[in-house]
Amino acid sequence: MDYSIGKDKYENWILGDQDFSAFHLGKTETVMLLGNGYMGLRSAAEEPYLNEKRNLFINGTFNKADQNEVTELPNVADATRLDILIDGERFSLEFGETGDYSKQLNLKDAELTRSFVWTSPQGKKLQFHFSRFVSLAHPHLIGMKMEIQSLSGAVEVSIESGLSAQVTNSGVQHFLEGDRKISEGRFIQLVQTTTQSGIDFVHNTVHTLKLNDEEITAEADKYMERRKVWMSYKCKVEQGDRFDLEKLTTVHTSRDKERDHEQYSLAEMQKQSMGELKDFDKEGFERLRDSHRLAWQENVWNAYEFEVESENPDDQLAIRFSLYHLTAMAPAHDDRMGIGAKALSGEAYKGHSFWDTEIFILPFFIYSNPDTARSLLQYRYHGMAGARQKAEQFGYAGAMFPWEMAWPTDGEVTPEWGDIDIVTGERTKIWSGLIEHHLSADIAFAVYQYVNVTGDEEFLELCGYEMVFDTARFWSSRFEWNEEEQRFEITDVIGPDEYKEHVSNNTFTNYLAYFNLMLAMRYAEKLAKENPALWKSLVGEGDHANWQSKAEQLFLPEPRSEDLVLPQDDTYLELPEIKLDKYKTQTKARTIYRDYNPEQINGIQVTKQADIVLLFFLMEQTFLKDDPRFSRKAKKENFIYYEARTLHDSSLSLSTHAIAASQIGEQELAYSLFRKTCEIDMGPNMHSSDDGIHAAAIAGIWKAAVFGFAGVRQADGSLQINPRMPKEWRHMRFSIFWQGELLQLDITEKRLKIRSDSQREIQFETNGVVYTFEDSIEVQLKH
Amino acid sequence: MDYSIGKDKYENWILGDQDFSAFHLGKTETVMLLGNGYMGLRSAAEEPYLNEKRNLFINGTFNKADQNEVTELPNVADATRLDILIDGERFSLEFGETGDYSKQLNLKDAELTRSFVWTSPQGKKLQFHFSRFVSLAHPHLIGMKMEIQSLSGAVEVSIESGLSAQVTNSGVQHFLEGDRKISEGRFIQLVQTTTQSGIDFVHNTVHTLKLNDEEITAEADKYMERRKVWMSYKCKVEQGDRFDLEKLTTVHTSRDKERDHEQYSLAEMQKQSMGELKDFDKEGFERLRDSHRLAWQENVWNAYEFEVESENPDDQLAIRFSLYHLTAMAPAHDDRMGIGAKALSGEAYKGHSFWDTEIFILPFFIYSNPDTARSLLQYRYHGMAGARQKAEQFGYAGAMFPWEMAWPTDGEVTPEWGDIDIVTGERTKIWSGLIEHHLSADIAFAVYQYVNVTGDEEFLELCGYEMVFDTARFWSSRFEWNEEEQRFEITDVIGPDEYKEHVSNNTFTNYLAYFNLMLAMRYAEKLAKENPALWKSLVGEGDHANWQSKAEQLFLPEPRSEDLVLPQDDTYLELPEIKLDKYKTQTKARTIYRDYNPEQINGIQVTKQADIVLLFFLMEQTFLKDDPRFSRKAKKENFIYYEARTLHDSSLSLSTHAIAASQIGEQELAYSLFRKTCEIDMGPNMHSSDDGIHAAAIAGIWKAAVFGFAGVRQADGSLQINPRMPKEWRHMRFSIFWQGELLQLDITEKRLKIRSDSQREIQFETNGVVYTFEDSIEVQLKH
Repeated sequence: MDYSIGKDKYENWILGDQDFSAFHLGKTETVMLLGNGYMGLRSAAEEPYLNEKRNLFINGTFNKADQNEVTELPNVADATRLDILIDGERFSLEFGETGDYSKQLNLKDAELTRSFVWTSPQGKKLQFHFSRFVSLAHPHLIGMKMEIQSLSGAVEVSIESGLSAQVTNSGVQHFLEGDRKISEGRFIQLVQTTTQSGIDFVHNTVHTLKLNDEEITAEADKYMERRKVWMSYKCKVEQGDRFDLEKLTTVHTSRDKERDHEQYSLAEMQKQSMGELKDFDKEGFERLRDSHRLAWQENVWNAYEFEVESENPDDQLAIRFSLYHLTAMAPAHDDRMGIGAKALSGEAYKGHSFWDTEIFILPFFIYSNPDTARSLLQYRYHGMAGARQKAEQFGYAGAMFPWEMAWPTDGEVTPEWGDIDIVTGERTKIWSGLIEHHLSADIAFAVYQYVNVTGDEEFLELCGYEMVFDTARFWSSRFEWNEEEQRFEITDVIGPDEYKEHVSNNTFTNYLAYFNLMLAMRYAEKLAKENPALWKSLVGEGDHANWQSKAEQLFLPEPRSEDLVLPQDDTYLELPEIKLDKYKTQTKARTIYRDYNPEQINGIQVTKQADIVLLFFLMEQTFLKDDPRFSRKAKKENFIYYEARTLHDSSLSLSTHAIAASQIGEQELAYSLFRKTCEIDMGPNMHSSDDGIHAAAIAGIWKAAVFGFAGVRQADGSLQINPRMPKEWRHMRFSIFWQGELLQLDITEKRLKIRSDSQREIQFETNGVVYTFEDSIEVQLKH
Repeated sequence: MDYSIGKDKYENWILGDQDFSAFHLGKTETVMLLGNGYMGLRSAAEEPYLNEKRNLFINGTFNKADQNEVTELPNVADATRLDILIDGERFSLEFGETGDYSKQLNLKDAELTRSFVWTSPQGKKLQFHFSRFVSLAHPHLIGMKMEIQSLSGAVEVSIESGLSAQVTNSGVQHFLEGDRKISEGRFIQLVQTTTQSGIDFVHNTVHTLKLNDEEITAEADKYMERRKVWMSYKCKVEQGDRFDLEKLTTVHTSRDKERDHEQYSLAEMQKQSMGELKDFDKEGFERLRDSHRLAWQENVWNAYEFEVESENPDDQLAIRFSLYHLTAMAPAHDDRMGIGAKALSGEAYKGHSFWDTEIFILPFFIYSNPDTARSLLQYRYHGMAGARQKAEQFGYAGAMFPWEMAWPTDGEVTPEWGDIDIVTGERTKIWSGLIEHHLSADIAFAVYQYVNVTGDEEFLELCGYEMVFDTARFWSSRFEWNEEEQRFEITDVIGPDEYKEHVSNNTFTNYLAYFNLMLAMRYAEKLAKENPALWKSLVGEGDHANWQSKAEQLFLPEPRSEDLVLPQDDTYLELPEIKLDKYKTQTKARTIYRDYNPEQINGIQVTKQADIVLLFFLMEQTFLKDDPRFSRKAKKENFIYYEARTLHDSSLSLSTHAIAASQIGEQELAYSLFRKTCEIDMGPNMHSSDDGIHAAAIAGIWKAAVFGFAGVRQADGSLQINPRMPKEWRHMRFSIFWQGELLQLDITEKRLKIRSDSQREIQFETNGVVYTFEDSIEVQLKH
């Protein structure tokens, strides 16, 4: 992988790979993913390779393949594969000679290209150029183009191309077979229906062949096979001629919001979508690509304009990479959908939403695209029934959100079993769905953060209050009374540090639960004043007193007096320590599992990911920010203690530590952790992204820059901006929304400039001083 | 493909391929299939290739993937794939240089081997040798061995190997995921259950690593993924060392006959089968292979001893090839199972049994292995309920056998839709399941042939009578009265010639139905005498009279007076003719469909496969043999007429024409048709067998030799032997069972010798003369 190879107007816009290797297909398939929130298409090469993962996922189309499994996003019918023969020889970069190879994702145009000169084993020499986009202008559209020029005399090019629904999720088939047909000799349609959720899919595709830009009719055969329909084209290409194949494909489903009504008809969808494809066919590849490029420029780059001047040009690229994928993954069009841990880029985690969304991804949208942030929170609100059901099932009250969430009505979808245990040889049980409980408080925190930043009271009334009250009710019922200690405790949980299963009083969980109860009380008081009718319908008689007494009596672990270190849980600080250097420098995930099994890891003072450090980061944004346990000094001590024991064996971890390092003045470490965050997906490890991008880490790039280097933060509703740029950065410029107003921030080492188009007075705090301005302000920074 | 390359004791025993091509993987995967009746394993290479079809089918384990589909044999978890790295380079014959390549199926030992010298792109040079067998001694066992020697200094060999259930049938998944585990660090078990039929599968596998024949413990990692569990081994191989990997795999299912009881327990099967694998592991690859070889020698080659001395050594090989596959495909162990059109060698036809079994395959077993023949007929008997149900569903009486049959209780399993129509672009409807009716009479014929050859009266009483009576009842109800012609007719059917859909009075169908009714009457008379009680329970009051009046009034098409040609159906002889040369010389199936659609083909005087010619062959074996319509002269005229119009566009066709050509003295043509029969699978067309072997054509090799060249035939219960060997054959020797006695036939151009070990008097007819003998006889042949 090479970066920053774009020139001129594409400088720092290009993700490039100049070195094809069949061993590393997963890397560019994933990081060069094309997507538009509606769908995500892995960038597998057109010509097939043995270990490719050729995936197309449509957001929200969850299906449960069988009773023993959980719902997941199915891999849908493929249109990208082209089987190409050159004078009877199979075209593959694994054979022959390849020169001038370049595979690029142009972030600016959201366009994938590949070009190279290929010489076949028999000596036929050709120039290939491929391009592909998933339209941001037309959410159902995929455009592809292949250009071939023969450099060594006439050749016969033969291409098989169509639609294949023989794809699976690692062998799991989610679809019943439906109609397949070819009309007017070139318009292909393939229909599928998911086996359990009954979602209809209509896939359409059409080819256009050109010789030297003139449309031609080539020799074409039509084929149909099980779950597959395709054309076989043959065309003679003379030396110097350019042969183009353009392919336009659309996907529509009965889950599309506009079809969520009683009059829905599959036949109508088949007809409409085919009509749409015929219109696209008339418009043609080039114009469709133009409208796609324009949509990216307007909706993304102009909207988020984020510039970084750094000694390392990869930093600017990384920021763009982050914004690119955050756009590609976000179902801005549909509040019944969330963001999966791997977004729409791989089978791993099945498209499920975790706490990754609220704690790691949502902040970007809250500050940059509040409509999408609200949509994502509404997704959780649509899942309230499932959350209440889960609570009831476990004998609790209120709403206990599913650890993994798919379609809102699917409820808890955490799988029961995970990887093999190297000691017993048996599969390990996945406990998160049963005992990782902090998510419900994380969601309450997200509601609070969203409302504080946006001032969106409407959301609070429609959804937010209910979410906070019902999670508070859950916690009240969840606490266990410890008679001996005369306090409530939370035993047998998993905290953010998932190395530790079945711990008690995980400090993160206890404090977040406490925050959740306190927030419920505050919101109840606010609501009683502002909307007594709603207050009456949402808050029960004894709720407030119950929340108060539970909160007051909840055990909140105290720091060790000698060094202010907060224990991660009841036993952590007493556990033996081992040398962790070997695992600290790991390039692969889970390397510690090669030496220790889960039970053994449970008994060592080692942390998978930000836990206490994350707690500090969250608490300083709340009404608990002035609690002495979260003082500046404590923050530093805890960072030092836990950073030494944290393997960052989760992609969620690094950005939080980067922010913390930045805050405590460890700028060099902060920058190094920022770079590591960027390199989770963009780095030299050619296998780290095989199973999909790390959505939370990609948002972490933005977070480390904005929360870390720019020091932007809401703290219990007030805006703080405490820039601490790394020495590598000369200048950063980006915008955020604050209370509905767009603020353009411009930061150098020396000064902070803010511009606003609003007429409202904006207040913020920098280095302990509160500033107020209307149009713009410049603040000198002292360090 | 090369043949007859074996030397010494393996002369004419070896099927060999000396020229690897990734374009032709299907050929050797299929024709070199390993099987033992319990399972069939396609001979895909250990290292994976893009277009491989890596299939393992277990007989009888039908499952219906969804409501829109029919039951089919699922492709089960794979153990054969090995992912091999040599110093980090992927081993594949598509890269680097391959020398001395040889892939061989040794028919005698039923063992697959591959050997070659491979030089990696980086210049590492190694000698590889693979061997593999599917044990005939232990029906659940697959044995594999890989030997590697480094020819260019030390290399690190890395191998991933285990069990993968990520396989599908062209994307269709038939299994729910079950337990997976590794015990004692090396015994792998994977459990699966079919989605609809609920059949449990237990797959076990274990590896043994050796260096220069010494067992070693290599560096091993264990992995588990969705539907997959495997080991990763690493081993340093010094120059001159030989590294061996042996892999023993077993498959057991809850469909296994010994588990078909109420106490069946999956846990018990898991335990027992793992115990068995541990015993196999102690015994070791070599001894297991020895017992497998011995089983083939004793049960197959000694039993069927069939020798041919021909100018063309491929003829002997072809006969062995036929016996080999007939053994591999036959579920001799279980009368609840049949033989699929592609046996256990491919997904095509879904493992379903067609009339191929009774008319083309069964004769081999009737004459060579009567127990298996009986088992196959009992399979049809177990399907009687489904046949009665199908009759009822169509408004008929008696038993109307499903055109395609899977598990006996599955009923009709013919799919509804076939390939795309090149004119309309839509899928074509498959009519066979609805209107191809002759199968019920074909089965009656098979019962009759079996009983006449074996004298197995027990079978007749237990199953045969009922099958014949109930099919006769079906025909009685099927006939339609034509008031104008004052006769019964059979309209709107498909006969053996499937080019012609919706024809009326298909002559084959009408005569076979007539035969069926006449046979029922004969059997009823016989039974009334021999077992009045059974007669009373099986034959209804008006049955006999009904059968008789229906038979008497059925329209039996008459030959044209001018040339004795029997019309194939009501309209055939009036249809226009086209030049067929182009399609007569076709090397691919269905080439006529590239120019004509089904409707058009329906209107041309062209026949897909033996229809009238087959009718002659069947009728001469019955009590209708002396009917003047089937005279010797008529046979010849009809052969000449229809051979000119038959494209042999079904693999069922050639052997019947070969037999007919032989009989009418066209020895040269007969031999050429015999060779074409052999070449359907063994021939130079590298794609003809991609989807699986042609089971009926493989039996056709035996039939053309025994019924054609040796002229063996039962004719209404008497044995005829009228040898007409082609000039290429000097000598043929084989044995048949006649009335339970083993007869060894030894034939040259000049004389026929028969030996029998029995004390019974054997009677047969040769060239119109009846001979009788006890121990042995020699008859001089005149031509």
